[in-house]
Amino acid sequence: MNSLERFVSACRKQSPDRTPAWVMRQAGRYLPEYREIRKGHDFLEMVHTPELACEVTCQPLRRFDMDAAVIFSDILVPCEAMGQRVEFVEGVGPVLHDPIRSEAGVAALSDFSAREATGFLAAAIERVRAEIGPDKAIIGFCGAPFTMASYMIEGGSSRNFEHTKALLYGDTPLFYALAEKLVTNLIPYLVMQAEAGANALQIFDSWGGALDAATYRERLLPHVARLVRETRAAVGREVPIILYLNGGAHLLEVLADADPDVIGLDWRVDPADAIERVGDRVALQGNLDPCTLFAPPAVVGRETARVLDAFADQEGHVFNLGSGILPKTPVASMEALFAEVHSRLPG
Amino acid sequence: MNSLERFVSACRKQSPDRTPAWVMRQAGRYLPEYREIRKGHDFLEMVHTPELACEVTCQPLRRFDMDAAVIFSDILVPCEAMGQRVEFVEGVGPVLHDPIRSEAGVAALSDFSAREATGFLAAAIERVRAEIGPDKAIIGFCGAPFTMASYMIEGGSSRNFEHTKALLYGDTPLFYALAEKLVTNLIPYLVMQAEAGANALQIFDSWGGALDAATYRERLLPHVARLVRETRAAVGREVPIILYLNGGAHLLEVLADADPDVIGLDWRVDPADAIERVGDRVALQGNLDPCTLFAPPAVVGRETARVLDAFADQEGHVFNLGSGILPKTPVASMEALFAEVHSRLPG
Repeated sequence: MNSLERFVSACRKQSPDRTPAWVMRQAGRYLPEYREIRKGHDFLEMVHTPELACEVTCQPLRRFDMDAAVIFSDILVPCEAMGQRVEFVEGVGPVLHDPIRSEAGVAALSDFSAREATGFLAAAIERVRAEIGPDKAIIGFCGAPFTMASYMIEGGSSRNFEHTKALLYGDTPLFYALAEKLVTNLIPYLVMQAEAGANALQIFDSWGGALDAATYRERLLPHVARLVRETRAAVGREVPIILYLNGGAHLLEVLADADPDVIGLDWRVDPADAIERVGDRVALQGNLDPCTLFAPPAVVGRETARVLDAFADQEGHVFNLGSGILPKTPVASMEALFAEVHSRLPG
Repeated sequence: MNSLERFVSACRKQSPDRTPAWVMRQAGRYLPEYREIRKGHDFLEMVHTPELACEVTCQPLRRFDMDAAVIFSDILVPCEAMGQRVEFVEGVGPVLHDPIRSEAGVAALSDFSAREATGFLAAAIERVRAEIGPDKAIIGFCGAPFTMASYMIEGGSSRNFEHTKALLYGDTPLFYALAEKLVTNLIPYLVMQAEAGANALQIFDSWGGALDAATYRERLLPHVARLVRETRAAVGREVPIILYLNGGAHLLEVLADADPDVIGLDWRVDPADAIERVGDRVALQGNLDPCTLFAPPAVVGRETARVLDAFADQEGHVFNLGSGILPKTPVASMEALFAEVHSRLPG
């Protein structure tokens, strides 16, 4: 089995020869060769330039024997394409101008043509395919409605999501209008990535864990489920859809009801608990605590083994961290992680 | 039943006449009269000055018919008393100098006499009692070992707790030495608060939700359980102990095993789920989403009712937010919240 077959097979709850592995945000600042390129280019310039996006996407695969490349991009790309100005300010993070908090704000957002407005992403995926060949998986992605809406409504990152929740609870029709517009645009955006060569599509709900299950089920699930359903209708079952949510131990059943192929688990979720609650319905991805990678390599190996063992009985497991790798992670930790994953290779 | 009886009765799973209510961080920046005092004094000065701490503790009770006053203080007070310099920097948050990351760092922390080093807190509690009289509950508090250790190790707030977890996973004996020293000092610190007049003691594990259940159970629970056990041995069953953890839907059983009287739930926890999992062992406190208070008053009333209804069958429920009230919360929202709570008064 090659990496692509192994990866897709695990996502589809079939029987790979071993557990496939990749790492969220594996193309990033913990790599000196990434930092070197980043010196000469700002973050959005890298996202917008297929040569650069391709180069940093491929960097980790040259160092570690990963089963998948995740395309270097950002979940805020569709916000830009819809007409909200996005900046990345050093030391602050993303700044989205003119936060969307009114009907007029939502109305001003335009539907976009994925190929026309975000063709750089398709081009980057095509370049990655040319470089890594047909045997590795490429993962495309987008943000989930709550996460995307929170950036657009708050105007950037947020600790508590006051404005977003004020709309969600207090002016639900306006929130729904935004969520619908987002999903309408995210579907062709994901489809474009699959057409360009992505073998799997991950929906990141980085902040959805800030909602209780009843609220998520009633107010977000319909939008997420539509995103999954209509994307799958277009790309087919052979491109698995992964739904990742950070801080979602209380939301597993709700996420499974969105009907993704895979649920991505953060590190707080007990694997046995996840297997029992939703493991028969979906494949599971995760879930090593990224902070483990700040401990010595022997500890990284031991904790990686603990995660692999915990999912041993799950039909369909993709090894990953429980959230994105942190910028100061030692490269030696990633080596220890993959050494442990590969020690499980059957022959 | 007066407020004190109602509050303690709910905490002890007896039968209060109605659900008692207070609000985490109720003495705070959302009140104009708090901001007025705060103009003339820095945060730590207010914590250290019994007159000021008493005044802001009592402010919310003059506006809202709450069942309890929570003493105005800070969980970092014991860090100072142990010899680590603590500063509150406007716009940054707490800064703890010389982060503790070595054996020498732990060894340099000194045990403190609660009355000598933190007598201002006892004095503040005594003043509050004199002002509010015997019929209202006073709540004292401290931080839990993981939360306290994380501030001391990171040197302040942290998003990912890299250094703390590097020790927890990679140099566990050092982490344990710090946790033990903390608990040894927190016990007499809590006891002092009860002796000064606190009717209940809350242990805040603000950041413990960043750990998975297996790690929390193995590495933190013994320290938390000792804090609960030895404090209770000193103050007696009549002073209930509340264990609050933010982001802890995955940790309820572990927290119950620490044997507090009450578990404080954040807003993400489904009440029915909590009742089923631990409701027979402990009373429950919570858990309205504090962001609800940014919606119009009618929505606040409706969501408050939803929480009260969800806990209707729980023997022992204390109404509260699921985490601290946010600084920009409109006062009208608090009015709507308490109006709904009081609408449930039986006669």
